[in-house]
Amino acid sequence: MEDIREFREHIEELIERKSFFELKKLLGNAEAADIAEALNEISREEYTVAYRLLPKELASDVFVEMEPEAKEHLIATFSDREIRAVIEELYTDDAADLLEEMPANVVRRLLANTPAETRNVLNELLQYPENSAGSIMTTEYVTLKRDMTADEAIEQIRSDAVDSETVYTCYVAENRRLVGVISVRELLLMQKNMKVGEAMTEHVVSVFTGDDREAAAALFGRYGFIALPVVDAEHRLVGIITVDDAMEVIQEETEEDFAKMAAITPSDKPYLRTSAMRIWRSRIPWLLLLMVSATFTGMIIAGFENALAAQVVLTSFIPMLMDTGGNSGSQASVTVIRGISLGEISFRDLPRVVWKEFQVSILCGVTLAAATFVKILLVDRLLMHADVTVLIAAVVCVTLCFTVLCAKIIGCTLPMIAKKLGFDPAVMASPFITTIVDAVSLLVYFGIARALLGI
Amino acid sequence: MEDIREFREHIEELIERKSFFELKKLLGNAEAADIAEALNEISREEYTVAYRLLPKELASDVFVEMEPEAKEHLIATFSDREIRAVIEELYTDDAADLLEEMPANVVRRLLANTPAETRNVLNELLQYPENSAGSIMTTEYVTLKRDMTADEAIEQIRSDAVDSETVYTCYVAENRRLVGVISVRELLLMQKNMKVGEAMTEHVVSVFTGDDREAAAALFGRYGFIALPVVDAEHRLVGIITVDDAMEVIQEETEEDFAKMAAITPSDKPYLRTSAMRIWRSRIPWLLLLMVSATFTGMIIAGFENALAAQVVLTSFIPMLMDTGGNSGSQASVTVIRGISLGEISFRDLPRVVWKEFQVSILCGVTLAAATFVKILLVDRLLMHADVTVLIAAVVCVTLCFTVLCAKIIGCTLPMIAKKLGFDPAVMASPFITTIVDAVSLLVYFGIARALLGI
Repeated sequence: MEDIREFREHIEELIERKSFFELKKLLGNAEAADIAEALNEISREEYTVAYRLLPKELASDVFVEMEPEAKEHLIATFSDREIRAVIEELYTDDAADLLEEMPANVVRRLLANTPAETRNVLNELLQYPENSAGSIMTTEYVTLKRDMTADEAIEQIRSDAVDSETVYTCYVAENRRLVGVISVRELLLMQKNMKVGEAMTEHVVSVFTGDDREAAAALFGRYGFIALPVVDAEHRLVGIITVDDAMEVIQEETEEDFAKMAAITPSDKPYLRTSAMRIWRSRIPWLLLLMVSATFTGMIIAGFENALAAQVVLTSFIPMLMDTGGNSGSQASVTVIRGISLGEISFRDLPRVVWKEFQVSILCGVTLAAATFVKILLVDRLLMHADVTVLIAAVVCVTLCFTVLCAKIIGCTLPMIAKKLGFDPAVMASPFITTIVDAVSLLVYFGIARALLGI
Repeated sequence: MEDIREFREHIEELIERKSFFELKKLLGNAEAADIAEALNEISREEYTVAYRLLPKELASDVFVEMEPEAKEHLIATFSDREIRAVIEELYTDDAADLLEEMPANVVRRLLANTPAETRNVLNELLQYPENSAGSIMTTEYVTLKRDMTADEAIEQIRSDAVDSETVYTCYVAENRRLVGVISVRELLLMQKNMKVGEAMTEHVVSVFTGDDREAAAALFGRYGFIALPVVDAEHRLVGIITVDDAMEVIQEETEEDFAKMAAITPSDKPYLRTSAMRIWRSRIPWLLLLMVSATFTGMIIAGFENALAAQVVLTSFIPMLMDTGGNSGSQASVTVIRGISLGEISFRDLPRVVWKEFQVSILCGVTLAAATFVKILLVDRLLMHADVTVLIAAVVCVTLCFTVLCAKIIGCTLPMIAKKLGFDPAVMASPFITTIVDAVSLLVYFGIARALLGI
């Protein structure tokens, strides 16, 4: 972070001093992601100047990482010839993302300056659904033939390298169908005249274009891949996903899960660069919704007003019961939500999960109830001289056990049911569970209080 | 998941039928991670048989992914010669992890069968602190010299490939100091007799052995690296981190953050394979701790018992105030915790963050208060005939504004202070924030109620 700040200030200073030669050298030695971050923070005039000093390949890497508004502005300053150069330099997955981000008039200008062949590829890529494997794949990869020798394969890689997003994993195709995979490492280790077909792995892990992009990305972590082939319904190789894009997907999906669990509408803009108004918009709908549901809890209390008036001390245990219920529920729900996300838990495991949470909630409930019972009789009654009887302590402890049980069972089942119904299980996280558990635990509390205390 | 189940059943069936030839073929075509997952679920006798059928290189990949108890059992069945073979086949980072997992007597046996040179490397790796970049690096990589030609470099890679964890990123060293980096792709694209020194990138992104492993792993996502060099204090190249290990670190740290945010002690064992007793142990300390802190909230209510007895209707708004405070606070805290984790927010941003949350909380507070005011007067008073006056509605709404403000400010500052003090900010997540906000909002509630209602 510190480095980027200094780097940005250095760029601004060189622009102000018009030391373009020095600036060119500074930028040429930096990483694309750092340059983009610095340029995103400086003025339009400045970043337009700086961008023009970048060498061609670095320029396109920086371009990909800039914010949409900056991209749009840069495109407006480009000549048609420059647009053609940029489109040609971009990998197809990045070009497709660009088209999706830009407003219609910019898209028209971009497409008018794209060669027909690339345009067809882009049109196809743009048709894959938003969260599919097809939407994150690129069409630039190395394909080899079974009967090539290792040496011929390396020559083929040499000639394809400029245009391929990765050259390290090569695919072997026959009539466009994927029949094998071989790595550059294996090619380098082979006898130079050995055939690709003899050394390749025939059992290739691949995904379909329509598969979920998160599931595809998870395969990288599991198998340690650098690239993953994507095939169509007829098992024809149509693209590859590279590890850097997979990491980006994982990061995006993780942040989305964190946001949903905290009842926030996900956004991919960094927090410090998001306006207060925008943050408000991403948070207020959930706060309102949760407030409305908390109202039901209030209504339950209002319904038992007379009972509470008779035994006001019961009120003082409400926060503890509600909080413990909420915490127990979110422990179960977050565990299950992550298990689903990582592919460790599926709907058919529901009985196993419920049985496990049942056992855990009995253990937790009894421990908490015992601790509370001792605390009420020793601390509340003796030290604070509160008017709690053993019977009231019993009401609180029995309620606690039930609350923990309900919280854990609700917490583990709701995310699984949400997933089964096609919703994102993360939405069933802590805040919603808490609201439901609150209502349930109060009903149990007053029910038991009525039965045992006769109020 | 389905596939793994079938795969495991297939393995069990082949072992029962003693069709070892078929089993060998089945295993030889599978991915190491899948084999390990299947073997982890079958009996000792079965997995010992299956393991022995694996070809040498695949066997060591499977071994690395098996659970510690299975590793220990397999080692017990190995002859000394087999142990030597396994240790030699493992990359040094995996061998070091193995030594850390095994009990002392197994470690002694392993080290006794390790060549002196490897033993020294392992001893050095084991000395890096647990969460450091040094602890996840491997010492097997390709180093080139400045004055090698592209062709000579490729020959060097060929001869180093067997023993290197990745060959795709090669490092150029001079007197052991890192002076440049070049990829196989660049080597393949160069003129065959061009020198490495002319084409390499001299500005190399690297980390120190003592740097945080999470920060090192984050560089992969940022720059799209396949490997990252690790240097010592004198800038001597001592190891590399590969992208698969970086992904594993990111996944582990993410799961740890999720667990801490849900008040669970992190564990790396899959949920369904963890016993109820163990789950209880990872959850109960936090529930107890949070229950104790919720007690303070109860004490506040107890202290205002008389006020509540005078106006019992005030009780019915407690859940809504507590829940809304908790939700507002966790929105702020989760946002800030993730910002810190991703390196977007550092301690010096504290004033900016507080200012932003202040603005957001005013916006949210006013919206929520307005909605509540209307709801109390229209729904509660007219439809439910509750005994709420305009003054009581005002008390609730003013409290709501203050609660949201306090919640957001507490929620955004505590994680940053925790980080500054050297704690994990994730511990300052929702449950703790909720407990603190509960107490604060009740104090504000009763304070305002006393002032406005004169109770």
